[in-house]
Amino acid sequence: MKPLKDIVVLDLTRVLAGPYCAMVLADYGCDVVKIEPPGEGDDSRAFGPFVGQESAYFMSLNRNKRSMTLNLKKQEARDLFKEMVKKADVVLENYRPGTMEKFGLGYDELKTVNPQIIYAACSGFGHTGPYAQKPGYDILAQAMGGIMSITGPEGGEPVRVGASIGDIIAGLFTAIGVLMALHHRTVTGEGQKIDVSMLDSQVAILENAIARYFVSGSAPKPLGTRHPSITPFDAFKSKDGSIIVGAGNDRLWEKLCDIIGCPELKADERFKSNSQRTQNFQELYPYLNDAFRAKTTAEWIIDLEAAGIPCGPINPIDKVVADPQVLCREMIVETDHPVAGPVKMAGVPIKMSATPGGVDKPAPTLGQHSAEILRELLGLKPEEIENLRKRQVL
Amino acid sequence: MKPLKDIVVLDLTRVLAGPYCAMVLADYGCDVVKIEPPGEGDDSRAFGPFVGQESAYFMSLNRNKRSMTLNLKKQEARDLFKEMVKKADVVLENYRPGTMEKFGLGYDELKTVNPQIIYAACSGFGHTGPYAQKPGYDILAQAMGGIMSITGPEGGEPVRVGASIGDIIAGLFTAIGVLMALHHRTVTGEGQKIDVSMLDSQVAILENAIARYFVSGSAPKPLGTRHPSITPFDAFKSKDGSIIVGAGNDRLWEKLCDIIGCPELKADERFKSNSQRTQNFQELYPYLNDAFRAKTTAEWIIDLEAAGIPCGPINPIDKVVADPQVLCREMIVETDHPVAGPVKMAGVPIKMSATPGGVDKPAPTLGQHSAEILRELLGLKPEEIENLRKRQVL
Repeated sequence: MKPLKDIVVLDLTRVLAGPYCAMVLADYGCDVVKIEPPGEGDDSRAFGPFVGQESAYFMSLNRNKRSMTLNLKKQEARDLFKEMVKKADVVLENYRPGTMEKFGLGYDELKTVNPQIIYAACSGFGHTGPYAQKPGYDILAQAMGGIMSITGPEGGEPVRVGASIGDIIAGLFTAIGVLMALHHRTVTGEGQKIDVSMLDSQVAILENAIARYFVSGSAPKPLGTRHPSITPFDAFKSKDGSIIVGAGNDRLWEKLCDIIGCPELKADERFKSNSQRTQNFQELYPYLNDAFRAKTTAEWIIDLEAAGIPCGPINPIDKVVADPQVLCREMIVETDHPVAGPVKMAGVPIKMSATPGGVDKPAPTLGQHSAEILRELLGLKPEEIENLRKRQVL
Repeated sequence: MKPLKDIVVLDLTRVLAGPYCAMVLADYGCDVVKIEPPGEGDDSRAFGPFVGQESAYFMSLNRNKRSMTLNLKKQEARDLFKEMVKKADVVLENYRPGTMEKFGLGYDELKTVNPQIIYAACSGFGHTGPYAQKPGYDILAQAMGGIMSITGPEGGEPVRVGASIGDIIAGLFTAIGVLMALHHRTVTGEGQKIDVSMLDSQVAILENAIARYFVSGSAPKPLGTRHPSITPFDAFKSKDGSIIVGAGNDRLWEKLCDIIGCPELKADERFKSNSQRTQNFQELYPYLNDAFRAKTTAEWIIDLEAAGIPCGPINPIDKVVADPQVLCREMIVETDHPVAGPVKMAGVPIKMSATPGGVDKPAPTLGQHSAEILRELLGLKPEEIENLRKRQVL
């Protein structure tokens, strides 16, 4: 059994931030009704890579959802949507602020239809403030939100985080907002609007970078893989790849010196304490760089783990999806898509003892469930649905 | 009013992943009782940077919480904790798997004390599988979970994401798990255990990297700031810094050619379509690199925005915390700490119309609320609390 199976979500979101939020809710049981424009559907149906004609990108983000089409440019479709809102718990949208109001479907309108509705908007910059109307993209959120400025090689140029965390973090905060609003509604009967922005979400995860700036007065910079205040806590080149090593205290440091065959470093005054090692890391690193080249990553992991020193490989994606721990935790799952066939994707990361989530259904084809949803939610008859199709409402 | 004000959380977590989860819950009203070992408290109280004697890192993560000390090495403290569990809704912990069981405080034990309890564990690798006993660190989750392998300069070495997203994403998924379990408990009266790992959480955000690998058979690599399939969608050097430019379709591309003073590129056969521009980006970039050096970032933003081309600066942290949108959205807030004085930190990113969250209270000093919590939750009298202190239970 899934924990949210009593919750109906009308999901108008496209591409990534909103769909990621809706995916988390769907993975744990929400009936997510994905409402797409007829014809092309969610933009990301056209994003590669493809399996046959189907977007693997779209399929991995939209499993467990149902799809119906609705042409919101038509008044009849908007009226139908409002009827559906009466039967729903949550409306999700990630349009630019004001778009839902132009459709006559803004929160102020929808709450008159269903005062208990939870309306969650996930946008680039939020529904208030001078940038509200700017278009939101992952790379802009990463760039303007600061994380890019602290990610990159030491002394080098900033880089984008390789996954779209500008979108994904906003999606996660939106999911948290929906669940909190659900709790409040259960207690009080009151619905509300939730407004999450990609930019705000990036600021919320800057963590100690903000503290470091306000205390020191200078903006933190990229550090490559190096830890700012613990040394050695970094990636080093091995004979066949890389190895992450974290010697977080003097005891582990001394063990490390023995393991890498440099016992003389233990007595070296420049490297006695963690703060000395951090201060003098440029003098220390040539010894470590030389030493770690002597063995393979797998050999180092055996030696370092035996000594209790935190360590691990830098796994490329092919290694990640074949990792024994990742597989044991069912973090790679497969759906059987009616058109594309078997498609592998990430599993669900929240392991719940009483109400486990899971990936049960492949992503829907465009409008696959239009008739079934209209019958279930609104009791429409086949001929009524057929007429809606003919009038291009669906 | 905050949405979770009826929820009591007993929070045994330390450092980042667990405390970040507890912070989100506290920001939205949970009574988070942070339980720390007497003497030193949460390890992160010793992490820099410091304001006076107080860790700015600790203060930014532990606002809105109350602190009490409890020496779980003593049986009396464990008995006291069990009494508290009877009055609580949620227990949070981020020990290595098995530690709570050694204390006699594992989920199986606690559910006999309070069957409704929601027990959430956030660990490096999860409570099952071959790596369960490995120590969890942010850099290991980032390295072993794959995001590091796709983050870095194009053709260069992988780098760590500059914020600790290995910890933070796990904290966010744990918060989602707690809220889903709360919903299930409201509906059924049943508590449960939640098991979230940093490694699983990283796999869950790899997004299209997994799809790209399974479709192409080759592992994606770092791309710097470049978009894998839209060109130009990248950062370029300006006269005084950098500018992100996203020309996502042919119409925007042609506008861009005019704005940067290269109208001849519009007719260039090598760059006619997005797929040609992406394929031939190495021939295209010299033109763009030259062109963008001609003006400042601020000048480019005016020109590009006027043409409707998505764009923005790469903000260092000093610019982020002074950005008009960030300030308008109250994403930088200040607490007045009893010892450290005013401390600035990130605000709350989920804007809720009926039940806004907020940062109301500074982080607690160690054990600041021990007496008040024991009085409120267990009805202990001042002399009983004094005796607990004398016996070093607190």
